[in-house]
Amino acid sequence: MTLKRIGTQTVKLENPPSIISTASIVGPKEGEGPLKEYFDMILEDDLWGQESWEKCESKLQEEAVKMALTNAELTESDINYLFSGDLLNQIISSSYCARQLSMPYFGLYGACSTMAQSLSLGAMTIDGGFADYVACVTSSHFSSAERQFRYPLEFGNQRPFSSQWTITGSGAAIVSSTGNGPFVTYVTTGKVIDAGIKDVNNMGAAMAPAAVDTISNHFKDTGYTPDDYDLIITGDLGFVGKDITSDLLKQEGYDISEVFNDSGIKIFAHKEQDTHAGGSGCGCSAVVFAGYVYKELLKGSLNKVLLISTGALHSPISTQQGESIPGIAHAVTISNSKE
Amino acid sequence: MTLKRIGTQTVKLENPPSIISTASIVGPKEGEGPLKEYFDMILEDDLWGQESWEKCESKLQEEAVKMALTNAELTESDINYLFSGDLLNQIISSSYCARQLSMPYFGLYGACSTMAQSLSLGAMTIDGGFADYVACVTSSHFSSAERQFRYPLEFGNQRPFSSQWTITGSGAAIVSSTGNGPFVTYVTTGKVIDAGIKDVNNMGAAMAPAAVDTISNHFKDTGYTPDDYDLIITGDLGFVGKDITSDLLKQEGYDISEVFNDSGIKIFAHKEQDTHAGGSGCGCSAVVFAGYVYKELLKGSLNKVLLISTGALHSPISTQQGESIPGIAHAVTISNSKE
Repeated sequence: MTLKRIGTQTVKLENPPSIISTASIVGPKEGEGPLKEYFDMILEDDLWGQESWEKCESKLQEEAVKMALTNAELTESDINYLFSGDLLNQIISSSYCARQLSMPYFGLYGACSTMAQSLSLGAMTIDGGFADYVACVTSSHFSSAERQFRYPLEFGNQRPFSSQWTITGSGAAIVSSTGNGPFVTYVTTGKVIDAGIKDVNNMGAAMAPAAVDTISNHFKDTGYTPDDYDLIITGDLGFVGKDITSDLLKQEGYDISEVFNDSGIKIFAHKEQDTHAGGSGCGCSAVVFAGYVYKELLKGSLNKVLLISTGALHSPISTQQGESIPGIAHAVTISNSKE
Repeated sequence: MTLKRIGTQTVKLENPPSIISTASIVGPKEGEGPLKEYFDMILEDDLWGQESWEKCESKLQEEAVKMALTNAELTESDINYLFSGDLLNQIISSSYCARQLSMPYFGLYGACSTMAQSLSLGAMTIDGGFADYVACVTSSHFSSAERQFRYPLEFGNQRPFSSQWTITGSGAAIVSSTGNGPFVTYVTTGKVIDAGIKDVNNMGAAMAPAAVDTISNHFKDTGYTPDDYDLIITGDLGFVGKDITSDLLKQEGYDISEVFNDSGIKIFAHKEQDTHAGGSGCGCSAVVFAGYVYKELLKGSLNKVLLISTGALHSPISTQQGESIPGIAHAVTISNSKE
């Protein structure tokens, strides 16, 4: 067997799996942002007929997967594995979604890195010969995340300018052993990097060093340069984290500024929408990937994209116990060509 | 490429990866139980010099992985992927452990099914040609779990007889593309099954239907019968869940009673140790596998084992919102032969 490893953190997929469909559902605020035309569905309110925000988040995942299946002309029983995760304690959004879908299920936790993590494991599972079709999905919900990680919304606390706005939304992708692309060609898996940031209202700074580590190792492992990509897009670094990442990568000899963007920046019109440092949450890179990136790849206006979802791996308990906030970043190359 | 799928939920590994080492570390109570001779290390107290139980749990994982590496005569940089998860919110035990180890890291959440989940993904990653060595680890801690899922210990609530005792401990395994076994030969991945149980003090009943589903599908997919195994061992069903599983499997035509045991039953002398319905937690199947099962496989007194780690996928929030407790069970066949 050919070992598919290249370098220290990357694998090159031998028969690059094809992302044959995606679906994205977002909340009302995301549906007023600049990417609104790219989303498959925009909710009118943030409960969607459910009794709680947590239950709404689970429904977001379920409906996103079902919509992606419909888009792929597949049914639930065609899917060999479901890879999903979210931000809530014990990833209840994902598990209660998986209960409804009845697919063999691998629950993941990578905080906001989950979209790239699920695409990584999903693509490897197909390329390894274990599956024909997998579903990859993740979600977040502004209101369920705020009350879990920060304060009850009713408390009305003031948000500092470095804070980000958790996306309400879910993005799903169906990955297949056959199809015409876009293809997952490389997977670079992140290590946990901790720069000592302790400010829970500055996630961008906490995650940036992990993004730098994964992106620079991706270049070293693959031999690619920033010029090889039409777009290098991170998950939810926001304005603070994107600047840090750009600066630190320059110090390592990689100037990605020409092709660099961030899902959390793209999704809102920040001044008008009062979202401070950018969007965030598992759902952020999920809906921007499933909506904007995927559709631009299909159109051919993008041909090769490096998606790096970034996660902050803390909990309120770890913060209360004085711990810093480590980050992780997972990257996948998504290309219209199998090379 | 040969597709390795057999049946609906199982894959047969083409070049079965070898579990080349394990390590297990347990708390004082587990160290007084009937399996004490099998564990590599027994703590004298449940803080191990740390400031909190949560930090102790993270150290348990870290030291278990390091010990397994030493046992395998490997170093941290030899490991291509770390697969781990735990019960704590945002799996902080695993993420803070991964921070110390500096390995490419896939965080998992499968509640107490995590040991088999990590072995499943680890073995598939190796068999798929993506890795030479992976580390699989999980942990739980009685005191961190009690205060998160139930009550502060200081409250001193009375425990009903169907309740289980969360294991303090961590079990790690190093899985390799080469080696002399024991080998991971089959992986059967569970679906989320919900029988409507709402009693958070009866995890065995909540998880049993998932165990039944995975075990019966394993038999259907592989053509194996209970006679093909020396031991079929579940994660933490305890006395209540084990009886339900046995009964329901009989109704499906599988009498596993001759070879069936449960990690949560084996780990304590329940009457003397006052542990009610059995041990539980991610660490339960992890330390019983890494300690007892693995060492008996090496001795040859066991030759073929079906390990089914079982998880309850609820959170305090989902329970407060009136949800039932769904379960999941992941199974791996571990055999001294590659067949």
